[in-house]
Formats: sequence, structure tokens, C-alpha cells
Amino acid sequence: MSQPSASGDWIDLLHWNQDGLIPVVTQESGSGRILMQAWMNRAALAETVATGRAAYWSRSRNRLWRKGEESGHFQEVVEIRADCDMDCLLLSVRQAGGIACHTGRQSCFYLRLSNAAWEAVEPVLRDPKTIYKHS
Amino acid sequence: MSQPSASGDWIDLLHWNQDGLIPVVTQESGSGRILMQAWMNRAALAETVATGRAAYWSRSRNRLWRKGEESGHFQEVVEIRADCDMDCLLLSVRQAGGIACHTGRQSCFYLRLSNAAWEAVEPVLRDPKTIYKHS
Repeated sequence: MSQPSASGDWIDLLHWNQDGLIPVVTQESGSGRILMQAWMNRAALAETVATGRAAYWSRSRNRLWRKGEESGHFQEVVEIRADCDMDCLLLSVRQAGGIACHTGRQSCFYLRLSNAAWEAVEPVLRDPKTIYKHS
Repeated sequence: MSQPSASGDWIDLLHWNQDGLIPVVTQESGSGRILMQAWMNRAALAETVATGRAAYWSRSRNRLWRKGEESGHFQEVVEIRADCDMDCLLLSVRQAGGIACHTGRQSCFYLRLSNAAWEAVEPVLRDPKTIYKHS
């Protein structure tokens, strides 16, 4: 990973939305599995690049969210890509613990549309109560 | 694919943003390759489900965008998933022509962050001039 600052041209080239955020898709390196979709602001992206660990902007908590800060389920960043419009990022990561979702599943995308209903199709690998100290 | 209407409970369960949109990540079935990220409104999602072909909402053109309508690069939908927060969709598709990006590349995510710069790391498979009649 390179170690650019939060104000570099590479950051300014990205299209940040009206809230100063960009959507981020996080994919497991190797398997290609989509783990989650979240958002970053400039500070989160700069920290992600500087530390090599994914940090996002939590819209619900309105603060920087260092993925794994409570659960230990950090994401080691292998590669960062941007799309042709420069308005979305794709993170390739190694997922600590093999669990990205707060429900204890590997991926957040565990709901499959089936006969006009959302059906949970992936197993809970770990009880969320044992993941989060404060849940 | 099931064939629910645009007003079904399954659509109302999703969290649509203030513009009535939801982000969509589109992944190639089999390879797991991320092809693109776009947006849908309710009508686009309903049409996608009804036809089995991906339709998005184009924010730049402010209209329904049937992927492939000009290029012939349709996306046949294999599966639709939602994430734990119900605020993002993941489409698994078969990509006609093997090209999702308007630049003629397989994936829109062809820019890799490398030494504080975005570097194009994937080949143009087809000249965009030969893809779009009106370009």
C-alpha cells in the first residue's frame, strides 16, 4: 500500500457526494465474495490507505468506523480500485475471523429474493452476542 | 425469477434513499468479478425482476436505463440479494458480450490505486466507438 495524505490529488479526483461520502464495495480477496457495502469520507479513505485496514464512515453513528474495532473482525486491504466514473470504490480485503456482517454471517448480503420475499440463505457462523461486548 | 409487482411488500422492505434510489452492486455470475455499481429506483427494480434483465436508474440522464439498450450488452439476472440493512442490492448476472463498462472494458473498476495515483490496469476489449451507435 502507498501512503498518500488525505489531501492528495488522487483523493480529489474521486467524486464525493453532497455529504462528502463515496460508496464502497468490499470484496474478499481470493474468493471474490462480496462481504459488504459501506461508505467512506476522505478521512476514512486516507486512514484506510495509511494503515492498510479498512475504515468507513458510519452514517448511523455519524463517526469514523474502524471496521473490527469492537469485533476484532478487521479487514486487511489488499487493493483499492475506483470505477470509470470515479464515484465508487472497490476494496479487496482479507477478512479477519471470516465474518463481515454484524449478524455473525460471512457476508452482509445474505438475503435472497425468492418468490417475492427476502429469504435468509446463509448461516450464522457466530452468535453476535459473543462478537460485540456492548450488544 | 419471481414476478412480483413494483408495489409488493418485498420492495417496501428495502430502504430507499431520499431520492428514491438504492445502490446496486453487479457481479458476474461464476467468476465473482465485480462489473459495476449503479442505482435503481422502484420501477427499475420491478422491471429487472419482471424481465430478468438488469435495468437501472441513470442519475446523469435522469431516466430508466435498460443496461445494453444501446450496446447490446444486456445483463441476464441470475440472483438478487439484499444486505442486512436492506439498503443495498447485489445482482448476480451473466454479462452479454463480456463487457460491462462504457469504456469497452469488462469491469468498470479498472482503476487501481498505486503510489498515490489511479492506474488503469485492465485492457480495453472493444473500442467504445464500435459499441455505441451515437457516441
